[in-house]
Amino acid sequence: MLQLALPRSVSIREVGPRDGLQIEAPVPTADKLAMLAALAATGLSRIEATSFVSARAVPALADAEQVAQALHQWPEVTWSALVASTRGAQRAIAAGISNLEYVISASQAHGHANVGRSSAESLALTDEIATITHESGGTLEVIIATAWDCPFAGPTAIATTADIARESIASGADALCLGDTIGTTTPVRVLDLLAAVGDVADGYDVGVHFHNTRGTGIANALAAIQAGVTSLDASVGGLGGCPFAPGASGNIATEELVYLLDGCGIESGVDLDGLLAAGAVTQRAVGHDLPSSLYRAGGRPRPLGPPAK
Amino acid sequence: MLQLALPRSVSIREVGPRDGLQIEAPVPTADKLAMLAALAATGLSRIEATSFVSARAVPALADAEQVAQALHQWPEVTWSALVASTRGAQRAIAAGISNLEYVISASQAHGHANVGRSSAESLALTDEIATITHESGGTLEVIIATAWDCPFAGPTAIATTADIARESIASGADALCLGDTIGTTTPVRVLDLLAAVGDVADGYDVGVHFHNTRGTGIANALAAIQAGVTSLDASVGGLGGCPFAPGASGNIATEELVYLLDGCGIESGVDLDGLLAAGAVTQRAVGHDLPSSLYRAGGRPRPLGPPAK
Repeated sequence: MLQLALPRSVSIREVGPRDGLQIEAPVPTADKLAMLAALAATGLSRIEATSFVSARAVPALADAEQVAQALHQWPEVTWSALVASTRGAQRAIAAGISNLEYVISASQAHGHANVGRSSAESLALTDEIATITHESGGTLEVIIATAWDCPFAGPTAIATTADIARESIASGADALCLGDTIGTTTPVRVLDLLAAVGDVADGYDVGVHFHNTRGTGIANALAAIQAGVTSLDASVGGLGGCPFAPGASGNIATEELVYLLDGCGIESGVDLDGLLAAGAVTQRAVGHDLPSSLYRAGGRPRPLGPPAK
Repeated sequence: MLQLALPRSVSIREVGPRDGLQIEAPVPTADKLAMLAALAATGLSRIEATSFVSARAVPALADAEQVAQALHQWPEVTWSALVASTRGAQRAIAAGISNLEYVISASQAHGHANVGRSSAESLALTDEIATITHESGGTLEVIIATAWDCPFAGPTAIATTADIARESIASGADALCLGDTIGTTTPVRVLDLLAAVGDVADGYDVGVHFHNTRGTGIANALAAIQAGVTSLDASVGGLGGCPFAPGASGNIATEELVYLLDGCGIESGVDLDGLLAAGAVTQRAVGHDLPSSLYRAGGRPRPLGPPAK
């Protein structure tokens, strides 16, 4: 009998307030804070609160400072923010968020579209961003965008992504995350890249960030977990997408990932019913139906009792 | 480095014309035949064409005889039909379809809602249905509905489903299929049930039939494939649902399954672009958007070339 190699527990990072909201019409800050409160109540221990990027490029997250100011209300959560530059890191730290994600695109074309820089130019900033992050007492994770595929250039060579992983660590990154930015990868490719990155990042946490654009996101998560990954990004309701990656769509839904984990006996510390409640708050905030199948199905099955005659 | 245990090839049975259409408003027969033609053109070698059940219970498939009459146009496909009674089997065979699927619910409550019979009462008919199927030169597969969970009664005991599997084979079934009727199972439960059924069905093909109601359908398919399953049901566009299982929703989408298999180097013989074309025909036939994420994303990524400045 086959038994899947599965860990006892995994850690989910909720990215809905950042990756989920960044492509939405701007949501009032008060509605965002209601969403954060609902997410914090689920038991999620890591939440990406916002990003400190250009308000012109991502108007939906222009209120990053106001959001950051409110986070002290939920000290049980490790809050983080995404940055794309030294200036963004300085802004985040000044606003009180010291655990940062810094994005480097493995694809030159996506890097130029996303932040106006080549991979090498983004990598060159890592040292300085790591230094100021560490001086503030925080940690720096490098998220490698288009780690598998680029919307402009097609497949990314495994060696290219692995090189960025190696150089990110050499430049001071404390952890890595592999981003399937346009939701194209599949389980065997997940394992192949994880193996290559694992070789150059021995001893460092390597997480995964999947989109469900082609329906394979949760299967990719299962494969990654089988390969030993214990850090996974997910977004409440399956919101998400990159404004600078045409064809990107929702992240894997946090509630679908938790349902999978619960069913497999893997602890996440996250309450599924709480996530559905947070989904309702999120749906009101964004003003349209959420893509998550589980959310639309109403969560776990609740046996109806004998059918009507 | 982890390598997934994966087969060289799998066989997909397209169930859209039956499971997909049965909960839709009735589609004109001509539109169904356009859908079958488009599906046959994809390379799918097994397609469930319709079901021979009460037209009152399932009005959408009341034209089973007319559909069956047309199937000789596509001799490269192994066509099958679902039946729920001896009378249905006789109708299917008279209409020229000799490969039959007979449904037995593992749950008493679902069996009563679905066909007005207990599991034992359904099992008692298997012998006769197998005999008339074999006399016509066909094969009989027993699909065990609510193999994991019942919408009325909750979880189905593994031993209950395994008992039905054993007795189905003893009564003449040539193959089995495990149905996750309301889309609730998860990978470890998939493996647990497959192991138990494999023990009592040694040497018989055991397929799987997953719904994606809670977002885990493709991950369940991946787990089943890892466990050695090579017969999988899927529905074009992710249509589907049981009219007598409240909360059921779409089957796993054929194009998402093929995308997963292609990405993993597993042959299915099915052309993904052909499936998207069949999806377009299906969407016109049913008159509403299909649930499949891959269909909505437009299929495989097509690199856009350098972004506009």
